[in-house]
Amino acid sequence: MSVYLVFALLFSILVYPFIAHWIWGGGWLAEHGKQDFAGSTVVHLTGAMAALAATILLKPRIGKFNKDGSANNIEGHNQVFTALSVLLLWVGWFGFNAGSTVSVDGAFFGFVALNTNLAAAAGTVAAMLISWIVLGKADVPMMLNGALAGLVAITASCAFVDTWASVVIGLIAGILVFYSIRFFESRKIDDPIFALSVHGTAGVWGTLSTGFFATPELATVGNPGLFYGGGLEQLGVQALGVVASGAFAFIASFIILSIIKVTMKGLRVTEEEEIIGLDISEHGSYGYPELVNKEAVKGSV
Amino acid sequence: MSVYLVFALLFSILVYPFIAHWIWGGGWLAEHGKQDFAGSTVVHLTGAMAALAATILLKPRIGKFNKDGSANNIEGHNQVFTALSVLLLWVGWFGFNAGSTVSVDGAFFGFVALNTNLAAAAGTVAAMLISWIVLGKADVPMMLNGALAGLVAITASCAFVDTWASVVIGLIAGILVFYSIRFFESRKIDDPIFALSVHGTAGVWGTLSTGFFATPELATVGNPGLFYGGGLEQLGVQALGVVASGAFAFIASFIILSIIKVTMKGLRVTEEEEIIGLDISEHGSYGYPELVNKEAVKGSV
Amino acid sequence: MSVYLVFALLFSILVYPFIAHWIWGGGWLAEHGKQDFAGSTVVHLTGAMAALAATILLKPRIGKFNKDGSANNIEGHNQVFTALSVLLLWVGWFGFNAGSTVSVDGAFFGFVALNTNLAAAAGTVAAMLISWIVLGKADVPMMLNGALAGLVAITASCAFVDTWASVVIGLIAGILVFYSIRFFESRKIDDPIFALSVHGTAGVWGTLSTGFFATPELATVGNPGLFYGGGLEQLGVQALGVVASGAFAFIASFIILSIIKVTMKGLRVTEEEEIIGLDISEHGSYGYPELVNKEAVKGSV
Repeated sequence: MSVYLVFALLFSILVYPFIAHWIWGGGWLAEHGKQDFAGSTVVHLTGAMAALAATILLKPRIGKFNKDGSANNIEGHNQVFTALSVLLLWVGWFGFNAGSTVSVDGAFFGFVALNTNLAAAAGTVAAMLISWIVLGKADVPMMLNGALAGLVAITASCAFVDTWASVVIGLIAGILVFYSIRFFESRKIDDPIFALSVHGTAGVWGTLSTGFFATPELATVGNPGLFYGGGLEQLGVQALGVVASGAFAFIASFIILSIIKVTMKGLRVTEEEEIIGLDISEHGSYGYPELVNKEAVKGSV
Repeated sequence: MSVYLVFALLFSILVYPFIAHWIWGGGWLAEHGKQDFAGSTVVHLTGAMAALAATILLKPRIGKFNKDGSANNIEGHNQVFTALSVLLLWVGWFGFNAGSTVSVDGAFFGFVALNTNLAAAAGTVAAMLISWIVLGKADVPMMLNGALAGLVAITASCAFVDTWASVVIGLIAGILVFYSIRFFESRKIDDPIFALSVHGTAGVWGTLSTGFFATPELATVGNPGLFYGGGLEQLGVQALGVVASGAFAFIASFIILSIIKVTMKGLRVTEEEEIIGLDISEHGSYGYPELVNKEAVKGSV
Repeated sequence: MSVYLVFALLFSILVYPFIAHWIWGGGWLAEHGKQDFAGSTVVHLTGAMAALAATILLKPRIGKFNKDGSANNIEGHNQVFTALSVLLLWVGWFGFNAGSTVSVDGAFFGFVALNTNLAAAAGTVAAMLISWIVLGKADVPMMLNGALAGLVAITASCAFVDTWASVVIGLIAGILVFYSIRFFESRKIDDPIFALSVHGTAGVWGTLSTGFFATPELATVGNPGLFYGGGLEQLGVQALGVVASGAFAFIASFIILSIIKVTMKGLRVTEEEEIIGLDISEHGSYGYPELVNKEAVKGSV
């Protein structure tokens, strides 16, 4: 049986609903006026904390770290597919953020969509510039992570902030994700798709951002942010939400995964399955059967 | 000249309009109260019957069946492209099913879209589970066929059934498509993209499903189904529509294709063209010119 | 620093806004009643003129033309990606053309979307037929250029013409793009993605087309076209707009690019960078890292 599906089921029953209730269902964080429009905390930080628990328990992939502690860069399979996937997410995010207004009537739907798009674009540009400055190249995978970081960050704030603030939130998210990825790698945490940085770091930043940028007109939940005369109150509520939700999600996920690890032959595929790849060991087929056959034909000749 | 384009033209003139008129244009099946909201019969079963006629007349691909009667699995070219195409169809289906309400105003558009999505998701899950149970692997191409089967099945019923029924219709479609694919292969019918199962078998099931699940409130055409106290009447009408439409589409397509076969140098490309591939013989170019050149370079070295 | 980004910035500041003001901002062409709904001139012809200036200054790619003056066909990398990109553009164009009505309320949004779709489809079919007739094959890249040409051409006229005229405009665009591509190649102009033909030639045709097809009911700007009793007046205005906008965009772009060429170490990457590819020299990574590694492994064995 699939450990992955079992955890997904248990997480959906035992972890996510608590945090969703605290913030969106009238729970104790909602009573404090926690702002999280479409879920930088509820969806993204929560997922990232489960990913952190999982990656700690799973240990790094074979070949990620060398004996001297240095890390190898295991590059993605296909940059075109990566870019296409990010574009699909970007478009889907309009349904997520703007869709959370629950109505396409009126201009608010479009306003939220505009904020979402600006943050994603700003995150992309920021990641391009920071990688160009630091690495000397316009790093495409990093730009794609910057786009996602902008989207994750604006998820909490898209309905509470002005358009100029969306650009600032996205820019900061794009820079944060760059350094966050380097930080986790330096800590010997193997995060193959950078979920901790894209969903965790940017999720924390996005949640905190309303504490700075929420405007009096748009703050239908909670209070205006620091830059609009609201003082540190809302920022404190946002930080409280991050700490409480993040800690609960991490601890609960760690416990569930640990129980699965003991009861279901471990969390991890065998070394042999990992080397031949999960396409074969889990799904029983190659992604590009023809190419494999050609290779096989060549090998036999 | 292209046999494919000639048949597409003739089918659009001589086959499809009759069935569309019978069911959607006030014809004899409409008078009986046939339910087929967006076309499980009119579009999908009709297409599948033309495919059946074509595959019988074309005969199996070179290399599909061995001399001892056993079948070879000619896998798809690229599973990522297959998945992407199914996702594009899935999204497009909202335009098709929900778009058939002819208006985005009001909640009915969204209701039909919701039913469509639930059936597709249920079909995917059902195909995953059945392939896991029977084959021991979560078969990705089969899951994609399950998604399409769910979409085809809900096409007739999306405006007539409750959301829970959409899930049931999709689940059954996902299981049916799995066994249908095995059935046609065992009958030595070579159906490269499983059109007979995805569009035919699921189209029949989707058409019949309103005879079970149509609710009194939603059955603006015809009568409620068996599970809502409507008895067997509507199920009979649905079955009549399947048989009449399917038979007409098959026979008419068979006659048209047979005439084309006699008058246009046969339906099938030459053996040489089939082996080098239709990319070259029909379109005059390779899909991935650079890879070909690299191969050629290697070959010459 | 990237010459490409610098030019994009300067073009956006020093070229595009002038033409947008002339036609859309109440400028002198607007006063003459210039019709250009979503920008066959403002967006597409302007871009094509910048591309013409750039390709003249850049000179052809290494390996495009032989010493005897004959041209080599440097084929696209991956036809599936090309087709997918064109489909994404096609869908995005609805936002562009229909979105330029500035409101989804009412039927006009849908009318403009319908015109857009018909022109794209007609352009595809026309390019298929003309390539089949002239080259003997249904040339897929040419069909995709035909789709884009239809979209570019209908961009000016989508709100001013009847649906039948959209089909005619698209058909003519699909044929023009075929001959335009051959023309520029015969003039030894290396245009790798056919921007001059798709955006330039089709942009000119689309701008002129309202001078023929604009109807009295729809011509809320300017006058009806030649075929609706408007005489040659509107056609003259459209031609004036093409010449003035095209000349300004070309000359201004040529000057800006020439200044960049002198001040920033030239417009072009080095010969070495061009041969290893800009994936590596500009972005620092391969598109398909695994394939590269496999090749490397093979090479070392």
